[in-house]
Amino acid sequence: MNAPQQWVFIWEKGYQEFDTVVSSVTSKVKGVVVTNTTELGVKIWDVADYIIPAQEENAVFVMTNLILTQNQTQGHCPELPETSFCSKEQPCTPGYVGKQSNGVQTGKCVPYNSTVKTCEIFAWCPVENDTHVPDPAFLNGAENFTVLIKNNIWYPKFQVSKRNILSNISSSYLKTCQYDKVNHPFCPIFRLGNIVKEAGESFSDMAVQGGVMGIQINWNCDLDRKLTYCVPKYSFRRLDNREIDHNVSPGYNFRFAKYYKDSNGVESRTLMKVYGIRFDILVFGTAGKFDIIPTMINIGSGAALFGVATVLCDMIVFHFFKKRHYYREKKYKYVEDYDELVGSECGSNP
Amino acid sequence: MNAPQQWVFIWEKGYQEFDTVVSSVTSKVKGVVVTNTTELGVKIWDVADYIIPAQEENAVFVMTNLILTQNQTQGHCPELPETSFCSKEQPCTPGYVGKQSNGVQTGKCVPYNSTVKTCEIFAWCPVENDTHVPDPAFLNGAENFTVLIKNNIWYPKFQVSKRNILSNISSSYLKTCQYDKVNHPFCPIFRLGNIVKEAGESFSDMAVQGGVMGIQINWNCDLDRKLTYCVPKYSFRRLDNREIDHNVSPGYNFRFAKYYKDSNGVESRTLMKVYGIRFDILVFGTAGKFDIIPTMINIGSGAALFGVATVLCDMIVFHFFKKRHYYREKKYKYVEDYDELVGSECGSNP
Amino acid sequence: MNAPQQWVFIWEKGYQEFDTVVSSVTSKVKGVVVTNTTELGVKIWDVADYIIPAQEENAVFVMTNLILTQNQTQGHCPELPETSFCSKEQPCTPGYVGKQSNGVQTGKCVPYNSTVKTCEIFAWCPVENDTHVPDPAFLNGAENFTVLIKNNIWYPKFQVSKRNILSNISSSYLKTCQYDKVNHPFCPIFRLGNIVKEAGESFSDMAVQGGVMGIQINWNCDLDRKLTYCVPKYSFRRLDNREIDHNVSPGYNFRFAKYYKDSNGVESRTLMKVYGIRFDILVFGTAGKFDIIPTMINIGSGAALFGVATVLCDMIVFHFFKKRHYYREKKYKYVEDYDELVGSECGSNP
Repeated sequence: MNAPQQWVFIWEKGYQEFDTVVSSVTSKVKGVVVTNTTELGVKIWDVADYIIPAQEENAVFVMTNLILTQNQTQGHCPELPETSFCSKEQPCTPGYVGKQSNGVQTGKCVPYNSTVKTCEIFAWCPVENDTHVPDPAFLNGAENFTVLIKNNIWYPKFQVSKRNILSNISSSYLKTCQYDKVNHPFCPIFRLGNIVKEAGESFSDMAVQGGVMGIQINWNCDLDRKLTYCVPKYSFRRLDNREIDHNVSPGYNFRFAKYYKDSNGVESRTLMKVYGIRFDILVFGTAGKFDIIPTMINIGSGAALFGVATVLCDMIVFHFFKKRHYYREKKYKYVEDYDELVGSECGSNP
Repeated sequence: MNAPQQWVFIWEKGYQEFDTVVSSVTSKVKGVVVTNTTELGVKIWDVADYIIPAQEENAVFVMTNLILTQNQTQGHCPELPETSFCSKEQPCTPGYVGKQSNGVQTGKCVPYNSTVKTCEIFAWCPVENDTHVPDPAFLNGAENFTVLIKNNIWYPKFQVSKRNILSNISSSYLKTCQYDKVNHPFCPIFRLGNIVKEAGESFSDMAVQGGVMGIQINWNCDLDRKLTYCVPKYSFRRLDNREIDHNVSPGYNFRFAKYYKDSNGVESRTLMKVYGIRFDILVFGTAGKFDIIPTMINIGSGAALFGVATVLCDMIVFHFFKKRHYYREKKYKYVEDYDELVGSECGSNP
Repeated sequence: MNAPQQWVFIWEKGYQEFDTVVSSVTSKVKGVVVTNTTELGVKIWDVADYIIPAQEENAVFVMTNLILTQNQTQGHCPELPETSFCSKEQPCTPGYVGKQSNGVQTGKCVPYNSTVKTCEIFAWCPVENDTHVPDPAFLNGAENFTVLIKNNIWYPKFQVSKRNILSNISSSYLKTCQYDKVNHPFCPIFRLGNIVKEAGESFSDMAVQGGVMGIQINWNCDLDRKLTYCVPKYSFRRLDNREIDHNVSPGYNFRFAKYYKDSNGVESRTLMKVYGIRFDILVFGTAGKFDIIPTMINIGSGAALFGVATVLCDMIVFHFFKKRHYYREKKYKYVEDYDELVGSECGSNP
């Protein structure tokens, strides 16, 4: 075998067949935080309050900031000033729905406050005012929450499955450990603040507008070695766009509502514009295992390459070098004499 | 190099190594719609009302139609006539639960209305009657909603990441643009009606029973070129089955409930059978980059093929052609005379 | 072509190009169950009650067990004894939040019951007591529920799409069938109990603490054959870890809350710690189709391998066998005489 061929074989594992990973993830967040605001007073937030929705497949969303609009009911109220100022000269259009509007215009122009008039709309009233986002973030304390990630992977072609909770890890270790790149690389419990820090970001900044973090689990496995060497490798990366110049709705947020009914059956809701960090657990990797097919293809192809290389080599020597006549004579004399496979100036040559 | 070999090289990028995409998606829908029915009166629906659940990973569900069953409480009531008619001859079985039933039979046979008697069941009462689906769809106006899709992809092998919001797109463009295959192929904001239309479907039809739409994002990238050429390509496809002959529960719907408690602590719920369109964002693609390994394998293999081709060619000429004796003589005389690599009738020949 | 080459060709489909599957899944569960406990009385549970969240992309969660903590309000109450015993010698720390705690310590030490004192916390009170998990599971009857799975797959490279509801299956069959490995391998309706049983597990055991089940759909397709031969193959596997020694929070559970407001606007919630089985639908597979590129690469590489093989063969015969001189003489005499391609002792030889 020649040199590049050996490289394919040893380094790039040319003797292996490959398969990509099939994965299943579950996660569990722990932690409580207390907030104290003039609007809401002292409040406690636990898992059932800040994880929305309660469970997802390959992700977990942790609320870090919040704009609350309580006691909304369907009715008529003035739109926010930003998009729908109005006056006698600039009247409102009944039935019109703007791109950013919260409801349908009735056509009336009503006072928003003592100085400004805006179009009246039919909507959930009062309308949410999200111009001011709390900074520092309402639930900045989420930095200290921890998330336990359980990941089960499978390589269908080789019928091999593994878990990120390795079998040599004890139950007592799992109760106290916290992931650390150097000291605890296989502990499946991550502090949220550390995840963000590892990705080179600031949690307090990210908590204000929200964002998306990738928890990447790499399962590259060489199945020709013992299965215990096949272990997960964690890394962290921010996935949403921070560039302000070419971005819309920066960060990550969404709206949802809790619905209530009073004793008369009238429905009201609390609208929540929820900012937070979505942790996407991205699992990828390939497993390789010895297989006769790629081995043979690589040997065959390498052997042929070997022939090509010698021919090319001869051509260069015969045609471009100064002493080419000497080489040519030497070479073909050789052939006439022995008529066998022997080594020439550049690699073995016929 | 021979012709097919060149094709592998140039067309099929035989000199590249490949990797498949790792993806993360977020989405945000905008729009409000007003409905006016005798049952509910005038009602407004905004994002918090029609997006269920509030956030998903690679999909977004938009409610387009609705069967509402208000003020359900647990108790006894007659089952729907479809599956459980009863009479003195056909009595009910206490404890029986049919495949389509909404509760457990008590054994009694009670009047459903003035003409029909059905089995009494223990269930959330009154039982939902979904025989009549509103047509046109309740929230047919969802056609005008827009969805902003943010997609971050990564090719782990090459350590390359990209976003579907390209870096040469300005913030002001993003505020007003709307995706259009021809004029705005890189605008990440899609009008729901247009998505459905592009897939060759009718929104009003689809809105009635619901359905599943695929928003496909293709990220095939040639990383030997500048990264700015690596751009997303959007396409749209309906994913659910419309063939009526071999289908169960056509369209797409699911049930969920809002729970209320009155002042006495008695729980009631509003059951919603929600029809709608689930937009699945399917991200796929491969990136290729020059790599010495596949290059050498292809050259080697091609060179060998080259040899095979000439041998085959000779065999055909020598054995099947009329003038074969002439060719054979010519060829081997040639060889005897010069004993060198020269071209023969079909390709270069030893 | 030599023997290993033929094997690559026939068995490993060396003449095909491959693509991996792009998939979209929807699911629908059916069934009701009645429970009778002293705490809750007789209660009925239907789809809207036990599927949480109402819809997911590639998974469906069915609640099987439940710890209910009703009428929680924010306030002060004693922590659970497990983690926070206290006394005059072991006082509580105001503001302290333990890893397992449900709230923030106020610093007071209050009686938990007549014998034990624990730290007072500010939390949603009363605190959930999850030390005793109902066994047998609360909704053990979920065993008889059925789930309909609709799967649409696509091979982008070949522009081929298929559904798991095959086109030769009639609508009436789909209304009554139930998946069975032997008799109904293409029925897309699965009884939950059977899924768990097929994976070699006990439903009643799994229902208590919850778990994660994989419903694997294998779409390996040979697109050189008729598309009707491209059919799904179902298999089932438990995905969560049952080994007690190295496990944290065994099974599968999560917490969520239903929020209520009384007539004075005071918010209360019902906290639910929900145990259940999450069915992850894992779709994978590759499609192969004839393509000239891999065909040629394999032929080329095989041909070269052929050459390597004969050289190796000669080397063995000439150098290691006893009668090597005889063979060598024979061989080269032959060559001198005829100077043509003829068969030698081991394979065709020049």
